[in-house]
Amino acid sequence: MNETEKRLMEMAKDVLGQIEKENPPTVEIPQRGLNNVFFDDDDRILKMGDKTSKRSFINIAHTKKFMQTMLVASYAQELVNKNKHAGIRELYYALKHSIEKSKENTFEDQSESNIIIEDLERMLDLLREQMNLTADRRGFIYGDMEVIDSGDRFNASKLGRGGWAVPGNIEDVKFKNKGVDYILAVETAAMSDRLIEEKFPKDNNCLLVACQGQAPRGIRRLLSRLHNEMDLPVVVFTDGDPYGWYIYSTIKQGSINLAYLSNTLSVPDAKFVGMTMDDIETYDLKGVTEKLKELDKKRIDEELKYPWFNNRKWQKQLKKCKKMGVRIEQQALANKSLEFVAKEYLPEKIDNRHFLP
Amino acid sequence: MNETEKRLMEMAKDVLGQIEKENPPTVEIPQRGLNNVFFDDDDRILKMGDKTSKRSFINIAHTKKFMQTMLVASYAQELVNKNKHAGIRELYYALKHSIEKSKENTFEDQSESNIIIEDLERMLDLLREQMNLTADRRGFIYGDMEVIDSGDRFNASKLGRGGWAVPGNIEDVKFKNKGVDYILAVETAAMSDRLIEEKFPKDNNCLLVACQGQAPRGIRRLLSRLHNEMDLPVVVFTDGDPYGWYIYSTIKQGSINLAYLSNTLSVPDAKFVGMTMDDIETYDLKGVTEKLKELDKKRIDEELKYPWFNNRKWQKQLKKCKKMGVRIEQQALANKSLEFVAKEYLPEKIDNRHFLP
Repeated sequence: MNETEKRLMEMAKDVLGQIEKENPPTVEIPQRGLNNVFFDDDDRILKMGDKTSKRSFINIAHTKKFMQTMLVASYAQELVNKNKHAGIRELYYALKHSIEKSKENTFEDQSESNIIIEDLERMLDLLREQMNLTADRRGFIYGDMEVIDSGDRFNASKLGRGGWAVPGNIEDVKFKNKGVDYILAVETAAMSDRLIEEKFPKDNNCLLVACQGQAPRGIRRLLSRLHNEMDLPVVVFTDGDPYGWYIYSTIKQGSINLAYLSNTLSVPDAKFVGMTMDDIETYDLKGVTEKLKELDKKRIDEELKYPWFNNRKWQKQLKKCKKMGVRIEQQALANKSLEFVAKEYLPEKIDNRHFLP
Repeated sequence: MNETEKRLMEMAKDVLGQIEKENPPTVEIPQRGLNNVFFDDDDRILKMGDKTSKRSFINIAHTKKFMQTMLVASYAQELVNKNKHAGIRELYYALKHSIEKSKENTFEDQSESNIIIEDLERMLDLLREQMNLTADRRGFIYGDMEVIDSGDRFNASKLGRGGWAVPGNIEDVKFKNKGVDYILAVETAAMSDRLIEEKFPKDNNCLLVACQGQAPRGIRRLLSRLHNEMDLPVVVFTDGDPYGWYIYSTIKQGSINLAYLSNTLSVPDAKFVGMTMDDIETYDLKGVTEKLKELDKKRIDEELKYPWFNNRKWQKQLKKCKKMGVRIEQQALANKSLEFVAKEYLPEKIDNRHFLP
């Protein structure tokens, strides 16, 4: 029995014990949201507070959620026991309408089952991936790293211009560093293609990780594992706009709801190489900026409050963005030349450690 | 000089010749849209009609577009000549604001440059990929197929559970079939993960192609090439809803605007395995359907008019969907069991060739 099964069984036995003693069964769940997380200034990571809520079977307001919690926990236990994995949407469909002879749905839609999965993550201090639950995958890697998975062994720099498509669940994957000094996480697939064509990963001994938008959980877990297991620095390269910076924020600290899982899912030491508002002047890119939308400005206001952006350098960039009213995309660097990003922009900034924290 | 460069140079020489003869330069562009394509009932593919439009430099309504056409053609020629590739967004940024000493933008936004790229495709009867222009990539493949690209050679069934991330441009990639009888194109990454976990590609000698939503051009080109070069049948597996069927439609025939490029970008012979509205009854899935949205119903009305859906079987499914007012997702099959899709649903339907045309 592995650690996940142990924790699931402990919880189940506890509930069963309460029933056998003829007590109404309850479970205790750490509270979600901002009022139960705090930023530990010494460790520079988010930690979970000690506020909990009780979920009780005989409280009518809790009964459905209690039932849902048991259903999801039981499904996860079955998965781990059978060494199978399921997508979180598969779980939703598998459990929907699962009470025989009742016309009541056990889950009305996937948002209901997603919340229960998060509750279990906080209750058991486990990633959903450790319960063999997988979110939709996206993203690929390219660089001199050996990957060992399901009996296969290959080098992620020997896959043509394609790279390795990262599965949603990488808990069982092993990695062996062959010649990589750091990791470059890149927002867009198109910029990753550019860097691969310019042989940037090879010339700079880096592993390129393409997020293809907001970093999905498989990619975040990969970054966190490679950083922690191999001591590889993580450098993040996104568009110069509130959405790109939010991608950085997620890689660095995760979402507030699950931020206390930072140790296993995020990289609090990650650094940001660009794009920044300063880049627009430094590299004379005024002609290729795009106008901010109203939503972007609201996003900036939110980001100004993030504890990890509460430092002089980030506050300056965020305020400057709002004031200038423009954004700058990674691919706008093509305005200089196709080679520019790989031969000048990134090497200059990375060699001089010209990063935001 | 390759075929692409030849055609670009021919066009350029023609324009230059007109100028040297002191004629106002014009180019002739096949008209876009429905009124210049027709469905060839014998060949079962869309073909381009012979209506053209003239784009003239001295017609004020055309001048900007004429200039843009020359800029894009010249950029493509440079790419092909240097053996470089550019994303279509990179092209936009590279050419934006490219007239020195003028404050006028040459392109206001990317939709302007995208249209010119399509014009050139129709003018020169070339895919943008053949002009080294690349759309954003997505999607991966998994199965017993050897891939030869940029000096690397590997088998796409030996990459763990990950698979090979397909680049946006696969013109230079070579494939060697090792043990694949057909291709299964799958809408979602999550369903692909399921099929990989169940060893479906191995047990059924198929190459799994994950589209991850609407099939991007790299994936469509890959399907078309493998189908034509290796005579591999293509079977498509999507959600049972107008959006999933639209994905099938795109793989089969492409968009109307570029449908005459079907031979190089699409697979008119593709077959559809599911999901269908009939599946809901056959496999007792009523409890796990989802309600249609208004937009879905409009989409159905459009699809009812597609020439390739103008047959008894498709008309029945489309009308049934509208009448029932529900959709059914691939992943809803998890309601039976996680194995069901790989051990019963797909083998049954594929072995009995239970397809829609």
